[in-house]
Parts: sequence; C-alpha cells; structure tokens
Amino acid sequence: MAVYTEVSDDELVDFVSEYKIGSARSCKGIAEGIENSNYLLTTDSGTYILTIYEKRVNPEELPFFLNLMEHLKEHGIPCPLPIKGRDGQALRTLCGKPAAIVSFLDGMWPRRVKPDHCAQLGSAMAHFHTASQGFTSQRRNDLSLSAWQPLFEASADEAESLRTGLVSELEAELNFLQSAWPQELPAGVIHADLFPDNVFFHDGNVSGVIDFYFACNDFFAYEIAICLNAWCFEVDLSFNVTKAKRLLNAYRKVREFNDVELKALPILARGSAMRFLLTRLYDWLHTPENALVTRKDPLEYLEKLRFHQGVSGPGAYGLD
Amino acid sequence: MAVYTEVSDDELVDFVSEYKIGSARSCKGIAEGIENSNYLLTTDSGTYILTIYEKRVNPEELPFFLNLMEHLKEHGIPCPLPIKGRDGQALRTLCGKPAAIVSFLDGMWPRRVKPDHCAQLGSAMAHFHTASQGFTSQRRNDLSLSAWQPLFEASADEAESLRTGLVSELEAELNFLQSAWPQELPAGVIHADLFPDNVFFHDGNVSGVIDFYFACNDFFAYEIAICLNAWCFEVDLSFNVTKAKRLLNAYRKVREFNDVELKALPILARGSAMRFLLTRLYDWLHTPENALVTRKDPLEYLEKLRFHQGVSGPGAYGLD
Repeated sequence: MAVYTEVSDDELVDFVSEYKIGSARSCKGIAEGIENSNYLLTTDSGTYILTIYEKRVNPEELPFFLNLMEHLKEHGIPCPLPIKGRDGQALRTLCGKPAAIVSFLDGMWPRRVKPDHCAQLGSAMAHFHTASQGFTSQRRNDLSLSAWQPLFEASADEAESLRTGLVSELEAELNFLQSAWPQELPAGVIHADLFPDNVFFHDGNVSGVIDFYFACNDFFAYEIAICLNAWCFEVDLSFNVTKAKRLLNAYRKVREFNDVELKALPILARGSAMRFLLTRLYDWLHTPENALVTRKDPLEYLEKLRFHQGVSGPGAYGLD
Repeated sequence: MAVYTEVSDDELVDFVSEYKIGSARSCKGIAEGIENSNYLLTTDSGTYILTIYEKRVNPEELPFFLNLMEHLKEHGIPCPLPIKGRDGQALRTLCGKPAAIVSFLDGMWPRRVKPDHCAQLGSAMAHFHTASQGFTSQRRNDLSLSAWQPLFEASADEAESLRTGLVSELEAELNFLQSAWPQELPAGVIHADLFPDNVFFHDGNVSGVIDFYFACNDFFAYEIAICLNAWCFEVDLSFNVTKAKRLLNAYRKVREFNDVELKALPILARGSAMRFLLTRLYDWLHTPENALVTRKDPLEYLEKLRFHQGVSGPGAYGLD
C-alpha cells in the first residue's frame, strides 16, 4: 500500500486535458501497488487507473510494459489498456515523473485462493503465454539465475539474524541451481509476478491481470513454477496438490507443455522460490523499520524451497 | 492514509447482498481517512464509499453521524448519503466491525487553497449551519474547552522536547481561554473538522463535504474560527486576509452572524488553534514512530495561535 506522490487538483486538470477522456471528476489514491503511486481516476467518460512511476521503475523500460499491455489487450487478455494522449503517446509526465492512464478493470483479487481460482489462473496464464508470442520487443529477466548470487551476497552478512544456518543452506542451493538450471525450454514474454493480488476475478472468472512491471522474457514453465509457489501453498505452508493439479491441467488445455518442460518443473519451482526468498530477504534487511511498506516474510519462501527440494518429480504437482 | 481491515471477496459479496445496489464489481482501499478503513466500491448500480469503522470511533455515536448525513443531504448539502440495507438499516457489520456504505461524491479537495475556494467554503458552511438547525439529535463536543486541560496534561511532560517554553505558554493560554470563553452564541450541529481535505470541489464549486465523525453541537462561529485556521494561512504560516474576508463575506450572505459572534471570532480562533495544537501534540508524542500514519506538526498551530493572540479585533479577519 502506498501513495508517494500528491497530485494537486490543478496539475490533474492539466494532465487529463492532454487526453480525450473528458475532464477529471475525482482522483483518489488507492492502497494497491508498492512500487508506484496509483489513483482511481473518474472523468466524464468513465473510470481509469492513473499511475505515477516512482523511483524503483526504470523509465526507459516503461514503453516495453505499456506496449506489452496494449498487445495483450488486443489479443484478448483482460489487462489494462494504456490510454493514449491527444498526441498518440501513452507515456506522459505528471509532477515531474513518468505517468500513464490505463483502463479500469472490474474484479477483486482473491484473498483466499480456492482450487477454482487456480484453474482459472492456469487457463488465463496459458492464454497470456500464447498471446505474448506475437510480441516482438524483449526484456531480459534481471531477477533470474545470474542475479541471485549478487542478491544473496548483498544480504549474506545479516541473513543469519533471520535463521541460523540460512547462509550455508542458500549457498548450497545456489550452487545446485547454477549447475542444473535448464538451458532450453519454450520461452517468451512472461508476467513474472502473477501473485494473487495481481489477478482479479469477477463472477468466478479472471477479469483482470495487472502490474506488468516485472514482465520479461523467460521460460513459460518458469512462470508456472512461480504460480505453483504463489497460489498452491496454504497459509500454514502445506502444499495443496489439488490446486496445483487444477492449475496445470487448465494450463495445458490451452497451451500444451512438453515433457522437457514438465520434468523441469521441480527445479524451476526451486529457482522461483529462491528468487522471491532473495528479494524478500534483501527488502527485509534493507527497508527502514519505519517505512510505509509492509515487509514480506522471506522465510515463507525458505519453506517453499524446501518442499520442492524434497519432491521426486513433477508428479508431486498432481500431474498424471 | 490508511486501510486497516482487509476485506475478503467472499465477505464483500455477502455484505453487498444485504443491500439493493446490485453485486460488487470491485473494491479498492483508498488512501483517505486516518481514523477508518475506506474503500471505493463499484457495483452494478454505481460507485460508493464503503467505510469500516476502526477503534477510534465510538460505535454508539455512529447513528448520530449517519443520521446527520442523511438529514443534511435531504436539505441540499452535498454530503455522502448513507445507503440503507434491505432491512432499512444503514449501520451494519463487516469483518466484525461497524460498517456503512455511502454515496460517492465527485470532486477533489484543494491541495492549494485559493481565495475562491474560501468563498465557496464560506457559503457551503453557512448552508450547512442553516440545514443542521432542523436536526434534533445532539452530540457534545468532546474536544472543546473542558477537554483541553486534560489533553494538555497528558502531553505536558514531553512537550518541551518540541519547543522550549511551550508548557508555560500553553498554560497561560489555557487560563485565558477558560476565563474568557464565550457562554452564549448561536449554536447547533457543526462539522468541526472542515479542513481542506474534507471539502471536495468540482468545476470551482463545493461538490462534497465528507468525514462527519467529529460533528457535534457547538457555536457556529467556532466552526468559522476552525476554518479561518485551516484555510486562511499560507504554507509559510502567514495569514491571508483576503481569503478570510472572502470566507466571511460569503458566509454571511447565507447566514447573518450577529455582532456578538463577530466580536468573539478572535478568542474562538485562539481556542480552535489550541484544540488542534493539543490533539496534534498528543498524537505526536503518543504515536509510535513506525505507525503507518503521517503525524501532523503541532507547532504549525502554535504559530496560528500566536497570530490570533496578536489581533486587535475581528477586523483582522478582513471584515469591514
């Protein structure tokens, strides 16, 4: 939850006049999105989300994200559509920062994930991967394998304060991941942050996929592995194989994944657990205690990592 | 800014079904209101504000506030209208806490107050005072004269850490206010917290008055005094007499105030400065540093208090 930038009424009126969406009627900061300032904007023509991009987003990458959303929306994915200004540009400036207006999506993200949500997610993710294959721009995943060692080193000195033995456990796992990470799997643009709070449901269906600011090129199966971690563990960190099975079966009804992808799932799940463990660990140790941000527990992902270390094969995820 | 209560999709669906407003389409926590959790709720029938009342509001007082909003709305004041459930009740329960849905109001609060805003405010406030006279319920102002001494004592031990000499300065002022506070002035239900962030403007007119949770019976002129403090000082804490004059003249075009009220303005302005100085001082000294709340500077109101101590009469506020 965060609103970092205070937009004055005058600035807003000027900004909205750069678009053909009528004049602003109201603009309220919303408690969603940690990285950017988000506002629910109503104008004479409807409801929109206004985002001001704060310092954690690289402005040079914004065209990739906005163009991707436009591409996916054109291909039937329920994602926000960037609204272009009168000059044809969607990426603009407000309060001296990059800013964009996108369409508003109905729905709520599931606070309590049920198996049906996982099935709907699997199908939506597969449609996403199919649609993204026609998108030609590329963005490297800067939070994948090669980033993990430096991320780990930036936290190693203090990591033991969270859990004794954590440093040696992560070192061993990083060595394993480096040696065994798959080289060749079907790849394309993935969302890379498909957590429940980025997927809206309405009347039981996926009505919105939001927050594209980690999207990048990577293995499609890596995205599935991220979702196994983010959607299929219970609050007590037990693994719900029914949810995983529903997710995977729904996915492969839309986009078949081959045996190599299937066999890679356990290591991809370990890698994705490592990725979120390391970024959370970094944020945990480097976020001031009084920051207006709720830090997420890194050790949740240590438990998930250990689960995947213990599986004997992809059958653990419920596939026949 | 704050959202304290996380509402699950299931709880929301159940809650909204208690109303005749269609089913919920989306619900987003908004970064407005410090005391309560506020959500922008869209349903099949439109946009609403859902409020969950957190611990700083006394549940027994909620009917007063909701009935007042309904009364004022019926009398043409642009305030939120509490929506009643199928059983006729507006005050309901969500996540185990008192909750209500009210109508949504267009407009934005002015981040930079201009003289025109003050004139519009003066007129709207006078209409408010006229309309509230027909409202028969009463609520004592529990942040007025009799509350100030105990509030002061609760902060006195640490007050010097903010400004040397503050304790003796406030003691002297409290003694003066106790001895000179007016006894008889036209009174009725006032809003009691008409700060700029509680007044929305659209196309230059007041489009909404929100946040009624300090409303109480007190002198109408005391509300004017609160607004002189909240709207007529510049960021550098200089007093803008043009803003004050526009506010007062617009007010008395709608509701005349008599000579006794006029003469009382300087002491009422001192008292209202004391009220906000003391509550801010209390919050400053008693809010944990890591709380998700931005503390407001008490010393801003010390400067305002000193300004009013130095005026020779109501002419300082621009009246002829």
